[in-house]
Amino acid sequence: MSKPLTDQEKRKQISVRGLAGVENVADLKTNFNRHLHFTLVKDRNVATKRDYYFALAHTVRDHLVGRWIRTQQHYYEKDPKRVYYLSLEFYMGRTLQNTMVNLALENACDEAIYQLGLDMEELQDMEEDAGLGNGGLGRLAACFLDSMATLGLAAYGYGIRYEFGIFNQKVVNGWQVEEADDWLRYGNPWEKARPEYMRPVHFYGRVEHNPDGVKWVDTQVILALPYDTPVPGYRNNIVNTMRLWSAKAPCEFHLKDFNVGGYIQAVLDKNLAENISRVLYPNDNFFEGKELRLKQEYFVVAATLQDIIRRFKASKFGPSFVCFVQVAIQLNDTHPALAIPELMRILMDDEKLSWDTAWDITVRTCAYTNHTVLPEALERWPVDLFQNLLPRHLEITYEINRRHLERISALYPGDHDRLRRMSLIEECGQKKINMAHLCIVGSHAVNGVAQIHSDIIKDTVFKDFYDVDPQKFQNKTNGITPRRWLVMCNPGLAEVIAERIGEDYIRDLCQLKSLLKFVDDDALIRDIAKVKQENKMKFAVLLEEQCNVKINPNSMFDVQVKRIHEYKRQLLNCLHIITLYNRKLKIIQVSQETAKYCSSFTSFSYTNPADALEE
Amino acid sequence: MSKPLTDQEKRKQISVRGLAGVENVADLKTNFNRHLHFTLVKDRNVATKRDYYFALAHTVRDHLVGRWIRTQQHYYEKDPKRVYYLSLEFYMGRTLQNTMVNLALENACDEAIYQLGLDMEELQDMEEDAGLGNGGLGRLAACFLDSMATLGLAAYGYGIRYEFGIFNQKVVNGWQVEEADDWLRYGNPWEKARPEYMRPVHFYGRVEHNPDGVKWVDTQVILALPYDTPVPGYRNNIVNTMRLWSAKAPCEFHLKDFNVGGYIQAVLDKNLAENISRVLYPNDNFFEGKELRLKQEYFVVAATLQDIIRRFKASKFGPSFVCFVQVAIQLNDTHPALAIPELMRILMDDEKLSWDTAWDITVRTCAYTNHTVLPEALERWPVDLFQNLLPRHLEITYEINRRHLERISALYPGDHDRLRRMSLIEECGQKKINMAHLCIVGSHAVNGVAQIHSDIIKDTVFKDFYDVDPQKFQNKTNGITPRRWLVMCNPGLAEVIAERIGEDYIRDLCQLKSLLKFVDDDALIRDIAKVKQENKMKFAVLLEEQCNVKINPNSMFDVQVKRIHEYKRQLLNCLHIITLYNRKLKIIQVSQETAKYCSSFTSFSYTNPADALEE
Repeated sequence: MSKPLTDQEKRKQISVRGLAGVENVADLKTNFNRHLHFTLVKDRNVATKRDYYFALAHTVRDHLVGRWIRTQQHYYEKDPKRVYYLSLEFYMGRTLQNTMVNLALENACDEAIYQLGLDMEELQDMEEDAGLGNGGLGRLAACFLDSMATLGLAAYGYGIRYEFGIFNQKVVNGWQVEEADDWLRYGNPWEKARPEYMRPVHFYGRVEHNPDGVKWVDTQVILALPYDTPVPGYRNNIVNTMRLWSAKAPCEFHLKDFNVGGYIQAVLDKNLAENISRVLYPNDNFFEGKELRLKQEYFVVAATLQDIIRRFKASKFGPSFVCFVQVAIQLNDTHPALAIPELMRILMDDEKLSWDTAWDITVRTCAYTNHTVLPEALERWPVDLFQNLLPRHLEITYEINRRHLERISALYPGDHDRLRRMSLIEECGQKKINMAHLCIVGSHAVNGVAQIHSDIIKDTVFKDFYDVDPQKFQNKTNGITPRRWLVMCNPGLAEVIAERIGEDYIRDLCQLKSLLKFVDDDALIRDIAKVKQENKMKFAVLLEEQCNVKINPNSMFDVQVKRIHEYKRQLLNCLHIITLYNRKLKIIQVSQETAKYCSSFTSFSYTNPADALEE
Repeated sequence: MSKPLTDQEKRKQISVRGLAGVENVADLKTNFNRHLHFTLVKDRNVATKRDYYFALAHTVRDHLVGRWIRTQQHYYEKDPKRVYYLSLEFYMGRTLQNTMVNLALENACDEAIYQLGLDMEELQDMEEDAGLGNGGLGRLAACFLDSMATLGLAAYGYGIRYEFGIFNQKVVNGWQVEEADDWLRYGNPWEKARPEYMRPVHFYGRVEHNPDGVKWVDTQVILALPYDTPVPGYRNNIVNTMRLWSAKAPCEFHLKDFNVGGYIQAVLDKNLAENISRVLYPNDNFFEGKELRLKQEYFVVAATLQDIIRRFKASKFGPSFVCFVQVAIQLNDTHPALAIPELMRILMDDEKLSWDTAWDITVRTCAYTNHTVLPEALERWPVDLFQNLLPRHLEITYEINRRHLERISALYPGDHDRLRRMSLIEECGQKKINMAHLCIVGSHAVNGVAQIHSDIIKDTVFKDFYDVDPQKFQNKTNGITPRRWLVMCNPGLAEVIAERIGEDYIRDLCQLKSLLKFVDDDALIRDIAKVKQENKMKFAVLLEEQCNVKINPNSMFDVQVKRIHEYKRQLLNCLHIITLYNRKLKIIQVSQETAKYCSSFTSFSYTNPADALEE
């Protein structure tokens, strides 16, 4: 009889992590060594951990390339409906493991790296997070991209390639300090610059109304340089594209009058103009009316719409805009709301369509996701700022508002208060444009991100709009991709589940319902508890390594993973933990089974009453 | 009998361009296609000319990698004397063809690209010039790198990786305008970032004199991030390194007190700090005392010396500085003069050596190339600026001067005027440091770049220094590499010569003397005239394509390839051409043979009296 398999060997046999065929492993090793030599220009004598990470990243990336080219070619040939997800944030995190998981390469890569005498976890630790988001809003965008690729939709994420993402936070001498997130310092192996698709974006200037049409002239031009990142579906050979724009000043930027000092200053000014894509605003549920932020918003919108229209015109449906229904634009919060006046501007000023036709196309194309009803988070741009930076868009927004109020006025004659409430322009104090109102009026669909949130929208903050267009209002509860947040984050749990109900749930989370038939299965409960205990032990090791804090892995863990900020109320959570501790006899009344079941789907905020008793 | 070979076929047989073996060509095609797919993520349907250029560049680069790694490993093992060429300018131009020439890949690549249905000249045209120089000074540095690699010396070029090189000049509506030279916009396939060798560079701060030594404290830190470019020798399997530093602000740069506006501004300020490597000063034979320029000079010096000392300490001669004779530092003009006080600072403050030992090492290590005696070109840094930016270096420079003047005073007692003339500090008006004097005093060798120039130095501008240290003064007439400036620029002429005297002259230009025996050979004169006529015809085509100007290729060409600037005296040259034209009967008196012989080594400023008669 052969030796029983160890846990690790058993795991390797489960295809959740892909199969480590001999050929596969040999190829990976060859390509790893090729990249180390030719791409990194290193040999094993002088290579650093980071070199090894890059060699592995390039090796894995190579597996995406053919699928990526074929997917895009397929879309080009078949011309399916295109979905454009516009967002100022894409909180993608790391890419290496996600790519290995979605391409079923995880076991083969583990084996190859092991045979090369290297440590996979160490290499993975060298990858910088793509932290181009503050929290939920940005991660939702990232999860949607994963989901749409897995569903095989012809979808594109469009955003900004911030040079600095969300800051790193440290505690120094008891105080929190920020550190700039220089995530591109060592290069990003997952992106490909596409200078051939560079687009001009205009700012400032003035509007000319001529007999042959309207012209926006005397503008300042900044170029938008796209960087493409592959977005692989889960084991379906689909690779979609996330295209992030980087700001580049044109070569001739302010370089007219020559003397050495003037020339040097002009080149330095050119660099300043590129501040548009320099840094993610660390505004989490907070609005700050800074011009640079408005520039960012228009920058992504203007570059993206040019790209969308170029692709549409090259399709079998172009150039006539009658078929623009083939295009869907989803606005992730109001940040890309300028897509509405920008699309109107293009359709009217460039494509010479009438207002009514342009408006019909715009509304049918755009949809809006609301993320919050907190007043301090809602975008209200001062008209003065808007007028200066985007004079033509202000004109169009005013005309959208005029027609909108005309309609409301016809529906509710004499109801001036309602007109005031529903106007896109807030008149009390400094005149401001309410971007949420612009989004609702300019979209055919408006959704909240949880049932209770979508209900609040309809009942309170946007009730007036619901009253006139109830069909627009929907709900889409935020989900997260089980590929990253279960298979990657908690592989032990993913495997325990797969052993019971197979792997299809990784694509279709509803299938978790099949677990209900194991509700009284002690073996499952034991397996889950074991995985949980292993995870707690791993976490204890990590905590000791990183923070030099020793904890007992048998104690209750209450983990709050958030930036340190007053509004996150860390202190309140501490008080809550103390309260719970003081009430621990009461806690035991919670059914043990319920607690275990709930806790198996998250590593956070789990209170194990049995552990509590052991303290 | 087989058909006679065409000129092109004949050329392919000459090994000046390398042999296009079948295997070689097949490999190149395979690797080109691999790079197009995996590196550029393109297929032939959508690839641009630039993509093809990059695929070819990567294919050719792959041939450098093994040689580069082996050369550096060889230096590491054998520890030969290292030569460090420090220069604020390296005017490298394009790299693709130079690499193909030096690696004997030109014919094979031509054939591969032809078989792929592409046009080699079109692809080569996509390469950006590495224009990190103003003219002769920067090109001398580049030619020295080529020469030292070809001679197999363990040499390194050290400079700055300017984001913007020498500006592009256009004529718009009759006026010259500059355009920023955004040469890195599309990426640079010839460089490899080496973040693992990043070095901190300090500025500002103050000096503390403590009992245990001198400390430079409270400084501002900028990081120097190196980018390495391979420098291949001519067909000798040697590949040396040019290391250019790029400025990076540290992550924690001024990021202490948090509010959103303050944070954003701090990140933008961080970007401003990186201006040090933003742009090449377009100062051709002109000095401008700007702080940013002084920062550039100290930046390259400080980063480079750290690298030199790290490499020395890792060698079999380190760590004792007794053997620092294994290190030679050549200063290309006074721009890197700070190497002298910086090396003193390191040896005394960090390595705790005495002044005398440190000074002995410094003088034996450093040598200085003077480029001009024009007063407006000589660097004289205001003491105030220096004091603020580099307080410790000012102290050291004062002490160097004190000891220097003590010596002069002993040699010429009472000659106060001589002391004034020879001081490193100029006292009339604003106090200034004379960087040429610093270089002469701190070096064991000083050279001019032409015999007449070296004579002038000794006789006039630095006569006082020559009087006390005549053994320091030398001449090294500027040369240019015949690989780039003959084989690459005038391949027809290179082949005509090779047919007569073989190819060895490409490594050893003295062998051109062997041509003397052909002085009466009509066939050689005919061949040279034919090549010349072909070149003139190519030039006529280029001129028509680029400037829409038609010229008769049988006319005399007088070409002045320079930036448009008053001091280049283009207008004077035009007047000269008119004068020559008016005197053309006189010109005919010039011996036709002499004119032809001279003209065969340059395409510029050739006046053919026979052609003149035909007008």
